Amino acid sequence: MPRDPHIRLFIPGPVDVRPGILNAQALPMIGHRSPEYADLQGRIIPKLQRVFGTAGRVFIVTSSGSGLQEAAVRNCVGHRCLSLVNGAFGQRWYEVALANSKPAHDLQVPWGTAIRPEQLDDRLRTGNYDTVTVVFNETSTGVLNPIPEMAEVVRRYPDVLLLVDAVSAAGGTDIRADEWQLDVCLTSSQKALALPPGLALCSVSDRTIERAHTVPCRGWYFDFLKYDKHAAKNHTPATPAISLMTALDAQLDAIEDEGWKARFARHRRLMHQVHDWVNDSGFGLFGEAGYRSPTVTAVENTRNIDVAALNAYLRHRGMLISDGYGPLKEKTFRIAHMGDTTEEAISVLLQTIDSYLAEQ
Amino acid sequence: MPRDPHIRLFIPGPVDVRPGILNAQALPMIGHRSPEYADLQGRIIPKLQRVFGTAGRVFIVTSSGSGLQEAAVRNCVGHRCLSLVNGAFGQRWYEVALANSKPAHDLQVPWGTAIRPEQLDDRLRTGNYDTVTVVFNETSTGVLNPIPEMAEVVRRYPDVLLLVDAVSAAGGTDIRADEWQLDVCLTSSQKALALPPGLALCSVSDRTIERAHTVPCRGWYFDFLKYDKHAAKNHTPATPAISLMTALDAQLDAIEDEGWKARFARHRRLMHQVHDWVNDSGFGLFGEAGYRSPTVTAVENTRNIDVAALNAYLRHRGMLISDGYGPLKEKTFRIAHMGDTTEEAISVLLQTIDSYLAEQ
Repeated sequence: MPRDPHIRLFIPGPVDVRPGILNAQALPMIGHRSPEYADLQGRIIPKLQRVFGTAGRVFIVTSSGSGLQEAAVRNCVGHRCLSLVNGAFGQRWYEVALANSKPAHDLQVPWGTAIRPEQLDDRLRTGNYDTVTVVFNETSTGVLNPIPEMAEVVRRYPDVLLLVDAVSAAGGTDIRADEWQLDVCLTSSQKALALPPGLALCSVSDRTIERAHTVPCRGWYFDFLKYDKHAAKNHTPATPAISLMTALDAQLDAIEDEGWKARFARHRRLMHQVHDWVNDSGFGLFGEAGYRSPTVTAVENTRNIDVAALNAYLRHRGMLISDGYGPLKEKTFRIAHMGDTTEEAISVLLQTIDSYLAEQ
Repeated sequence: MPRDPHIRLFIPGPVDVRPGILNAQALPMIGHRSPEYADLQGRIIPKLQRVFGTAGRVFIVTSSGSGLQEAAVRNCVGHRCLSLVNGAFGQRWYEVALANSKPAHDLQVPWGTAIRPEQLDDRLRTGNYDTVTVVFNETSTGVLNPIPEMAEVVRRYPDVLLLVDAVSAAGGTDIRADEWQLDVCLTSSQKALALPPGLALCSVSDRTIERAHTVPCRGWYFDFLKYDKHAAKNHTPATPAISLMTALDAQLDAIEDEGWKARFARHRRLMHQVHDWVNDSGFGLFGEAGYRSPTVTAVENTRNIDVAALNAYLRHRGMLISDGYGPLKEKTFRIAHMGDTTEEAISVLLQTIDSYLAEQ
């Protein structure tokens, strides 16, 4: 049963989880209607508020991030949704909206580029939409969309809600849900927060709750109004993933010990470390200049190396990167520099890739 | 952070999880598209097939049991659902159907009694339904519905699917999804399987998959067709709760070491142990004779004791039972005898309750 040797993960999620945090899952079980549980949720919420930059509601949901994509559209989309797509997860959100029979249009820009606020404004000016979905950090392409500027555009349209998927952003870069007036900002546990997968987390605005009251067929499992009602008692509507929450509690303490600013600065340093290596090695940066992700770099495979062979070489040496996502499988490879990854670990990885390249 | 001292749980979920299984969560993280992950899921599926008594599909979903209640109605209900209700979780399933805008009728029988196959037949004869939802073991009342006999009735109506919530039954009593021809049989991890909460598990019939192809608005997160497609590669559509799955893998091995028959027999013995104590103590058994649950007993509070005070006394001595569910809060209290609970542990619990009663 023990998986030995441990393969160090530089894939963009699930990321490595430190042993102390893995062990925090192993505390004895408690009842989800007990005072111990309410204390646990009550300890976590203020720390999650700091993750999202909100003084308002934060919900903890047992699902992947895609589950909260579904929640957000089911609770928010009334007459029509505009889904901004510049990568696989923007595309997924569009498909999630359609799968839930929500009228939705997509705004597609080439993968690897960022979406411009003006493009969004052009579409919203039609008056056709009451909701916008956008991915903050496209894990598939390593592009960070300009959310503050996009939010400014959306705020000119008082009836439009802005839903932001911050998977692979939250915990890795600054988020200010209140200041930017994001209506839903969601993430999952296994990315920049460096936790095991299984929890999805989100901030939810007053406007979202007002909208949800008017939207039919919100379902039961992801109904924000049920979460809101139970939050008053530090409960969730159904039994939550308690062992993952004890890990979340411990990890948020560890992150606050590091300090949010120090953490974001570390992610930036790791990004530059990877960018420098990419430039020195004769590869390209797939993501558009000015919009490159602080948590994951998509490397353009300009040298046409065999990514699968590289990864087999790395695996043999106890580490793993990721190939490109979907249509980018052969054209890019991805190196995550999020979570609790250190400069030393990235150095060892890059040196090992260099050794592989030297042997070709 | 360590919760000390450990309070032993005799509540009907989450139940206590043995330390070895808690620790199985703490293995190093792996990628969900890696061969290690496919091996993990591939090891688990045959063991889960034995939980449900099926040679067919089994899906692993990151959610609570209520999440799979939502999945089942979203994938299966075409024109109208009949929800059988004799307790809180039957009622919940009815509400989940309505919350998903599924036309649904309820068949209500008094809490504490079992639903009779004839009652079901009377309703199906109207031809109004294409789906039936029923809870195998009502955790709220300690009643086990006669699923094999009910399934026989449903099979007389070839267009009707039978969805069974086996939360607090699966892993605690024999289930034969193939032999009984159940279309969906679902459970969650934190009940008779004695795992941390966060995973929901289900068997799914061919008929269910055929039906799902005809049902619009199945959503994305709980779409059985997506699960079915990914199952071929031992994957799930979105990132699964990997650490909970390593615990599931370890616990299913431990259960098979005990042996399914031995496990079910132990649950029956614990049930009789609790029943004998109830009779000797002058309390009543809330559940109808002939239909009493092998995993949880609802004790009728005929002596009008203060259940909250009893539980405070027990907590002080390192153990916890449950008050009645919802409207039964004061009228009953519940003792779970599922999962890995032993005769010795139940003895200590009952002796401690006796001490409390003697002091009144």
